[in-house]
Amino acid sequence: MDKYILLDHGSGGLVSQNLIGSLFLKYLKNPVLNQLEDAAVLPPEHGQLAFSTDSYVVDPIFFPGGNIGELAVNGTINDLAMRGARPICLSLGLILEEGFAVEELEEIIKSIANACDYAGVPVVTGDTKVVPKGKADKVFINTSGIGIVEVDINVTARQARSGDIILLSGTLADHGITILTSRASLQVDGNLKSDTRPLHFLVKKIMAEAPGAVHTMRDPTRGGLGTTLSEIAKSTNLCMEIDEQAIPMHGEVRAACELMGLDPLYLANEGKCLVITAPEEAEAILAAMCSVSEGVDSCIIGKVTKKYPGRVVLTTTSGGHRLVEPLSGEPLPRIC
Amino acid sequence: MDKYILLDHGSGGLVSQNLIGSLFLKYLKNPVLNQLEDAAVLPPEHGQLAFSTDSYVVDPIFFPGGNIGELAVNGTINDLAMRGARPICLSLGLILEEGFAVEELEEIIKSIANACDYAGVPVVTGDTKVVPKGKADKVFINTSGIGIVEVDINVTARQARSGDIILLSGTLADHGITILTSRASLQVDGNLKSDTRPLHFLVKKIMAEAPGAVHTMRDPTRGGLGTTLSEIAKSTNLCMEIDEQAIPMHGEVRAACELMGLDPLYLANEGKCLVITAPEEAEAILAAMCSVSEGVDSCIIGKVTKKYPGRVVLTTTSGGHRLVEPLSGEPLPRIC
Repeated sequence: MDKYILLDHGSGGLVSQNLIGSLFLKYLKNPVLNQLEDAAVLPPEHGQLAFSTDSYVVDPIFFPGGNIGELAVNGTINDLAMRGARPICLSLGLILEEGFAVEELEEIIKSIANACDYAGVPVVTGDTKVVPKGKADKVFINTSGIGIVEVDINVTARQARSGDIILLSGTLADHGITILTSRASLQVDGNLKSDTRPLHFLVKKIMAEAPGAVHTMRDPTRGGLGTTLSEIAKSTNLCMEIDEQAIPMHGEVRAACELMGLDPLYLANEGKCLVITAPEEAEAILAAMCSVSEGVDSCIIGKVTKKYPGRVVLTTTSGGHRLVEPLSGEPLPRIC
Repeated sequence: MDKYILLDHGSGGLVSQNLIGSLFLKYLKNPVLNQLEDAAVLPPEHGQLAFSTDSYVVDPIFFPGGNIGELAVNGTINDLAMRGARPICLSLGLILEEGFAVEELEEIIKSIANACDYAGVPVVTGDTKVVPKGKADKVFINTSGIGIVEVDINVTARQARSGDIILLSGTLADHGITILTSRASLQVDGNLKSDTRPLHFLVKKIMAEAPGAVHTMRDPTRGGLGTTLSEIAKSTNLCMEIDEQAIPMHGEVRAACELMGLDPLYLANEGKCLVITAPEEAEAILAAMCSVSEGVDSCIIGKVTKKYPGRVVLTTTSGGHRLVEPLSGEPLPRIC
């Protein structure tokens, strides 16, 4: 096995096939992927098809709490889960820079395999390209995923209604602040780490509790909670009223945000879920969320009203109010 | 609209949303994509699910006969078609380099829209990331696709049997030689151009003619016909005997290969299909292939035998024989 990625590894010839056999199949093997055909073929499924794609270009590729590989698995699973879908499989598209260390690639593939095993969602098809040194940065990963929406539900931003309750499945801004501090090599007290994790088990619990009551689910990734709520406000023309004091945050995240002058409302989360639900079911859904490990810190953070149509309003810890705009002109590149 | 891609275009905030609205939705709009949810949700389908992914890093991004955009659409459609699937939708994942000209991006998105329209396969979900200048090369595109295998067929490399006939849907090496000459700015007489095109209409015609007779379909892209046949030989432990004289090639492609010292058997094709079929149906399938525009130059190029198990043997134009090995150690990077 070579120590570094060569252009040959992307040629489609023998060296590519060696990489596939000795690395990808070693960790990711399953009956469908093993066939190495142009496309995977899976048994028929009953229900609507959910389909999502995300490319991952996070810098650094290894960070406290995870790496680009598990982030890519969990991120696409979560996009499917946010539509109430049961994820059934993933594709894996790698773009590698010539000279990238095979040892690091192996670490990433191992993480992908572990994340897939944990989630119960296999990689069934893949592709690898190699570009000359300097034409990419180490590794970029695309994952796409298929899910099945079994019950007749329609969970979208547009379904939120006035009177609905807004829940958040845990602490804010863990991923964003971890990437930014580790990129800047900042030493921060405490234990900052990414919250990357799959949310489909949590969603399954929520949907089992009260499927019809869930109007909207979103994972506030790039752009953070502020941008996600703004999008929902805009597409419903309703007001999202949230309470700063109610939003859970780790102390070290709050401290790091203050240190770096960053608003946690705009920082990315990679294992958190925003749930907007009919008020009569909110407590039951909250209890369901808190009953699983990835939702143990869930809480009600606000409500949907008609106060300022199309806007997000934050009640600050000091009791004042401020409008939360979508993220604008603040580049936080390569956060995911 | 900005003239160049900024890091902001990948932030997930307002500037990203402007790019999505003013460029992506302008050309690619359809009822599913327009919803801009975390995942697309599509109606239930009956049949096995086919799933494929490919990343495109071709250099140059514009070339005679096409560009990276339509290549990405056609390439993934073809991977689905090679399993006998009817492609139903695509995802589109863009990785853009900061500073990339928006005008060029628009040209690419227009091509994607045209290719999708022509093929009847919409983009239903997407993602855009931007990396700092120098961390990628202009634009990389991932497309993944879902297809439906409606009839109970199993078209794979393993299905080829001794006695089967090998057909090729047209001229060899057009894409590979076009990319290589245009990258090297070589002037070649004649009209070299990529053969990028979708093959699912051709496949539909083939499957309608004699579904059970088709054992294997493959599009010989990276690694070319030589590598693709080697893979089939290896997975069946049969011998692929092909006749050099029977393989159609444009005169200018042949000339350019001689000029550059390249073996057309290893050059990429992006609109050609290798079909391995039961001998009794071969003539009928050939006629079906020749009856559609993308298969008009189809011909029989060889047969499957037990002569040299696991090997590919070429009868040369001079009547000799040579073993065709899979591509090895010859880097032709960024061909697709």
